[in-house]
Amino acid sequence: MAAHLKLEIAYDGTNYGGWQRQSNRSSVQQKLEEAVQKICGRKIAIFGASRTDAGVHAFRQCASISVPKKKMTPDDWLRAINAHLPRDIRVIRVSPAPPKFHARFNAMSKVYEYRIWNGRIFPPFEVNRAWHIPVPLDIAAMKRAARCLIGRHDFSSFASQSRDPRKTNIRTVKRIAIRKAGPLIAVEVEGDGFLYKMVRGIAGTLVDAGKGRIPAADLKRILAARDRKLAGQNAPAHGLYLVRVKY
Amino acid sequence: MAAHLKLEIAYDGTNYGGWQRQSNRSSVQQKLEEAVQKICGRKIAIFGASRTDAGVHAFRQCASISVPKKKMTPDDWLRAINAHLPRDIRVIRVSPAPPKFHARFNAMSKVYEYRIWNGRIFPPFEVNRAWHIPVPLDIAAMKRAARCLIGRHDFSSFASQSRDPRKTNIRTVKRIAIRKAGPLIAVEVEGDGFLYKMVRGIAGTLVDAGKGRIPAADLKRILAARDRKLAGQNAPAHGLYLVRVKY
Repeated sequence: MAAHLKLEIAYDGTNYGGWQRQSNRSSVQQKLEEAVQKICGRKIAIFGASRTDAGVHAFRQCASISVPKKKMTPDDWLRAINAHLPRDIRVIRVSPAPPKFHARFNAMSKVYEYRIWNGRIFPPFEVNRAWHIPVPLDIAAMKRAARCLIGRHDFSSFASQSRDPRKTNIRTVKRIAIRKAGPLIAVEVEGDGFLYKMVRGIAGTLVDAGKGRIPAADLKRILAARDRKLAGQNAPAHGLYLVRVKY
Repeated sequence: MAAHLKLEIAYDGTNYGGWQRQSNRSSVQQKLEEAVQKICGRKIAIFGASRTDAGVHAFRQCASISVPKKKMTPDDWLRAINAHLPRDIRVIRVSPAPPKFHARFNAMSKVYEYRIWNGRIFPPFEVNRAWHIPVPLDIAAMKRAARCLIGRHDFSSFASQSRDPRKTNIRTVKRIAIRKAGPLIAVEVEGDGFLYKMVRGIAGTLVDAGKGRIPAADLKRILAARDRKLAGQNAPAHGLYLVRVKY
């Protein structure tokens, strides 16, 4: 008999090679699987909703796991797993899930936030947590550029992997909200799915629009060209946060 | 000819053995003096207003320095020093100071903030930046306890060094403000000066009052006894921030 659980997880991605298990660097998935192994005595696979890159953070990543019942409540699991995790990874909620629930395949949409520190001096407390852009950014131009990306499009111009002809690069971006609070600019992007480094490609391109390097109106042309060379640089990983996953 | 400057400095204290130069660990003062040495070609002493402990942070430490003129404006100095500093230390302002200005001896008061994360789960992003207290704290009791400490008193009960009979342990605490925003509790303390680990002794004792371990009314008795054993534990260094120095 197994219990199926949904885990919600926060992490500071600075010290990890990303979500996904890999041979050369420790990963968030690995730390979680090791914690569960210490509790269960055997390896159990954990499936994450988003394979966040090295350095990317999460306020609320979601994962699914099937565990032997062991008379443990979801809250027992939360405490037990956290007891075996480093402090920069925390399970913040555990809840029972339907037997077929899969954190990745059942996700309806994902919300990411990209944080930009738009001030002359980069505060020590923002190191590894935001992208420092010391020159002024035109927020109105960034918003105009962002509007061109809303909707169902082929986002090849914003993806960092060569196109796989067997797979579609069409995704739906439901919403891009740009908020400014003092020097901090937060770009929130919600979509039904994202191509590899797509949010960072969008954030980098919006910053170029904010600098006046790419006219906001050009975004439609860049999108239509389906050519990664036309969009702006990828914004660095350490400014990106997975905010939530909707089911 | 020398120019006298006031530096305002922010730092994340996590990776340092405190402000003061020392033989076994790198310090904030050392990093600043090394940066200035790279610019001037010789060692120049920098005097800080507060000798913050290992792990303690600063939003706005103040320091004074006499530099050879070299036709550099205060803003030139800001950029030059920051170019030689690690990212967890930033000079945020440089201004001309009167020839006799000394950051430590001329300070009229200092403002510290102690940050407590009073929630069940400690978020990864607060690691090394707040003290995690998972049990409920009675804020009203903490405020009542804090009121007993306001004013001019002998603070020996809150200082971590044995009394030096040649020096006074009398200090004036001008203000203690306790604010709560969600799980974050900030204890702001302003005083004309502080004994060694005094703010951390006060924060630890207020937390004990919040837990009901020390009745708020006992604070007057503890203060009068001038005995460090009676007050609560020292709160850990990583929750403490030097907020500003007033002249």
